[in-house]
Amino acid sequence: MQLGKKIVRALFVGRFQPIHLGHMEALRIILEAVDELIIVIGSSQKSHELDNPFTAGERISMVRAALDEMKIAPSRYYLIPVPDSTMHSSWVSTVIAYCPPFHIVYSNEPLTRRLFREAERTVQGIPLFQRKLYSATEIRQRILTGKTWRTLLPKGVVAVIEEIKGVERLRELAETDSPFTKKLQV
Amino acid sequence: MQLGKKIVRALFVGRFQPIHLGHMEALRIILEAVDELIIVIGSSQKSHELDNPFTAGERISMVRAALDEMKIAPSRYYLIPVPDSTMHSSWVSTVIAYCPPFHIVYSNEPLTRRLFREAERTVQGIPLFQRKLYSATEIRQRILTGKTWRTLLPKGVVAVIEEIKGVERLRELAETDSPFTKKLQV
Amino acid sequence: MQLGKKIVRALFVGRFQPIHLGHMEALRIILEAVDELIIVIGSSQKSHELDNPFTAGERISMVRAALDEMKIAPSRYYLIPVPDSTMHSSWVSTVIAYCPPFHIVYSNEPLTRRLFREAERTVQGIPLFQRKLYSATEIRQRILTGKTWRTLLPKGVVAVIEEIKGVERLRELAETDSPFTKKLQV
Amino acid sequence: MQLGKKIVRALFVGRFQPIHLGHMEALRIILEAVDELIIVIGSSQKSHELDNPFTAGERISMVRAALDEMKIAPSRYYLIPVPDSTMHSSWVSTVIAYCPPFHIVYSNEPLTRRLFREAERTVQGIPLFQRKLYSATEIRQRILTGKTWRTLLPKGVVAVIEEIKGVERLRELAETDSPFTKKLQV
Amino acid sequence: MQLGKKIVRALFVGRFQPIHLGHMEALRIILEAVDELIIVIGSSQKSHELDNPFTAGERISMVRAALDEMKIAPSRYYLIPVPDSTMHSSWVSTVIAYCPPFHIVYSNEPLTRRLFREAERTVQGIPLFQRKLYSATEIRQRILTGKTWRTLLPKGVVAVIEEIKGVERLRELAETDSPFTKKLQV
Amino acid sequence: MQLGKKIVRALFVGRFQPIHLGHMEALRIILEAVDELIIVIGSSQKSHELDNPFTAGERISMVRAALDEMKIAPSRYYLIPVPDSTMHSSWVSTVIAYCPPFHIVYSNEPLTRRLFREAERTVQGIPLFQRKLYSATEIRQRILTGKTWRTLLPKGVVAVIEEIKGVERLRELAETDSPFTKKLQV
Repeated sequence: MQLGKKIVRALFVGRFQPIHLGHMEALRIILEAVDELIIVIGSSQKSHELDNPFTAGERISMVRAALDEMKIAPSRYYLIPVPDSTMHSSWVSTVIAYCPPFHIVYSNEPLTRRLFREAERTVQGIPLFQRKLYSATEIRQRILTGKTWRTLLPKGVVAVIEEIKGVERLRELAETDSPFTKKLQV
Repeated sequence: MQLGKKIVRALFVGRFQPIHLGHMEALRIILEAVDELIIVIGSSQKSHELDNPFTAGERISMVRAALDEMKIAPSRYYLIPVPDSTMHSSWVSTVIAYCPPFHIVYSNEPLTRRLFREAERTVQGIPLFQRKLYSATEIRQRILTGKTWRTLLPKGVVAVIEEIKGVERLRELAETDSPFTKKLQV
Repeated sequence: MQLGKKIVRALFVGRFQPIHLGHMEALRIILEAVDELIIVIGSSQKSHELDNPFTAGERISMVRAALDEMKIAPSRYYLIPVPDSTMHSSWVSTVIAYCPPFHIVYSNEPLTRRLFREAERTVQGIPLFQRKLYSATEIRQRILTGKTWRTLLPKGVVAVIEEIKGVERLRELAETDSPFTKKLQV
Repeated sequence: MQLGKKIVRALFVGRFQPIHLGHMEALRIILEAVDELIIVIGSSQKSHELDNPFTAGERISMVRAALDEMKIAPSRYYLIPVPDSTMHSSWVSTVIAYCPPFHIVYSNEPLTRRLFREAERTVQGIPLFQRKLYSATEIRQRILTGKTWRTLLPKGVVAVIEEIKGVERLRELAETDSPFTKKLQV
Repeated sequence: MQLGKKIVRALFVGRFQPIHLGHMEALRIILEAVDELIIVIGSSQKSHELDNPFTAGERISMVRAALDEMKIAPSRYYLIPVPDSTMHSSWVSTVIAYCPPFHIVYSNEPLTRRLFREAERTVQGIPLFQRKLYSATEIRQRILTGKTWRTLLPKGVVAVIEEIKGVERLRELAETDSPFTKKLQV
Repeated sequence: MQLGKKIVRALFVGRFQPIHLGHMEALRIILEAVDELIIVIGSSQKSHELDNPFTAGERISMVRAALDEMKIAPSRYYLIPVPDSTMHSSWVSTVIAYCPPFHIVYSNEPLTRRLFREAERTVQGIPLFQRKLYSATEIRQRILTGKTWRTLLPKGVVAVIEEIKGVERLRELAETDSPFTKKLQV
């Protein structure tokens, strides 16, 4: 698809398990640089795993709430869940098929960067904000161990997690050492 | 997920190949009755078939353009592509996993209605507007045979179809009688 | 797996949409000839289609009810749902992986016969009982059009169909001419 | 499906790699409390892995042998292999589609418990019998290392394992440190 | 991958069910124009269907035999089976991932042409030789109905079909009007 | 398929990530013992992972280059990419469907050996040449850490890796500790 001349549209891929203040800072900076942003909810088919506790629908609620809180109008962005591909080498074409056309990809994730660059797309890094602290892995860990985590997320995201009893879900998923948990999903 | 007390959110499922003025009339009526609407782009993995010519991304562009034209703010709706499920009996749970929570499903499609009702969801019909004329099947047929079709679509949708050379795509897909076309996709 | 010397175990594959008196007659004859029978519920992932209206679980309920009615003890048979395979050429190995070992395959279905014979398995035909009348296709057609169908099924199967509102389901599935119905399932 | 008034049917999910005396004790207790039991053979598509050495068919043979040994008639239970689902959030609907209707789920496995509870199903724990010892993981480990394992299983299960040369299979699977073993299955 | 300067490598996609003298003529002409040719065996996962009777392995045997007969050295070509993709829009990236790099695509098949052109690849038509007669559909039809077909194929292909009892297979597959045949493969 | 009397055809399965001098030595020895060899490129759908960096097409280029260098004519072998199977127990039937008929399987990989032996195929070991050194795992590790690796590969393979910037790809894939990398592929 040819893009209209004046609009610059960027792509940002994340799993958002969950979206946190580090993501928000990156989104704010990107939205200053471009007209429209496509936010891809990656691994959309996943949920109920320690590394991927939330469904695509729950993550969409969280991202929308977070952007509302930051006063970013939904007309500025697209929020699109994209399932994983069976072949890494087909993943970029899957993203392209699921999304309106875009000019630039923002990512710090090496595999995402690599795959888009091999597909001859422009890829740009994101200035990260206290990466160690503002990391979804760190946040899931804190939820599990009962350490402070609410301050690392937008308030609306905390509200969604509480509404869906996300803390309880994460802790239950961690309760087992059974290989079944890992094996359930193909 | 528990829903907030005051907001009523509805679900509307379609393939939107392409979205037309009949859909628009239905969306207008539903949006008068509910606070927020989730518009599911069904069979999101499909494209480049006579019955499913457009990609999910192209359909998202079309729906957004159509709703903009009708002055419906993106804050009123979610636009969510959902891939088909290998089992009909798992399709409702797939939709639920991909979407924020909803109270009511609007649909005239018998299978959609049946599956949601078996899942004990409230399903409501949609007042249809000149169904024979405003039908995606009819429109694809008219594009193929060169009959008037632009007047059946929102202007923004016509613009997207022209930008992506959709007429040419549809006609090329029709050019063959080879079983290969039907067989390519598993 | 080596089989014990004295027991002869046979395999019978069907979709059982639904099981009818023709199947029952075949099962009766086979169970006179062998010690144990594995009844495979084929295309187990399918349901809610005109040709495959019932889920695997519903079909298991029907087959068990039908065999109970014929006083065949569950110790004489195994009832095993097997999903379709992406490759016809892997289907026999899928059946073998899902079932206890067996010595002989009973089938009149050309593809089933062909695939098992190419895998060097003994395949035997089934004496059919009024094939035109006792056919699942004929029965689904009669349910749809309101012609007599109950007399073609064991009473327990009729009871299951009524309990799950199977007549209503089949008629609703037939209500549409929309390509969506056919397209929903990948 | 509406259930008949008097019968209580429960569901029990396991991978049974292999079924052992701990499972048997649980099954005995559940079968005292309910009329009929559906035993789901989970991850039915798996075999020939260190954690999942046996095929669904072999596991069906083992469970039937174990229950025969305990004098539990096949009319009391259903033995149903269910493949994993691509989405955890669709797994419960897959189980429901594969099984006759049930009133209660027995499980100690956190993910199983969580998914059924989110689907608003009644879930009950199982009194475990010497969990450390009677664990399939422990048993596979003992088979591999040559420690006593036969006393932890019903005799009929030992017989099936020996008939299919299961000890040899497990040891061969352990022979390699090659990533290929783990990578073979998608 | 950058290609070496001097070699021109082309791609030719077919299902080759079976390869016939029309294909051979096309391959001969292309091999005069380019240095190396990649012959993709499309829909490689299919077999045992009326439209796709032969396995990928059987088709590889046929193509190799046909090219040997035409004295084309295996060093001039690659013979690569490629499975269908779940998404048409990912099919080109699947072909690219399965093949060495290529400069030009030869095809008369509208969907293949369309997908490669949308991916900005050079696509060229093939001069067809008596298309009505030299068509795999026509040949399968003749095999089924017992009309002359051997003269339409290279001798080595006839030999492979006879060795694998292909005529018998095709006729058996045609014997049924049962929906099961069509339904077996997902 | 019946095989011609005089030709002995063997099968050799590998992932070839990448093919190295140890493989070459094995192929040389096998090609002295048999007439024709089928070289299966296993896990053909994989690429862009630390353990599976190269696409099937890149691996085909490498194997062809390596065999050219050893003066083995393409008429002596078939080079066939085979995707993984969802079920280990269907993998052998997948390989059989993708390949011309073969008499013997050469492999040292325990799972491959086990699966072919359970399918009653003749399996033979390969005399390994300095296994610790000539191992794809070792070579990928050396590429990552900057230790000598070129001497362990045929020159043509080194050339392909350099042409596709394989060193850079492997290092980028290693750059992240993010769970996303592992999670991207289903």
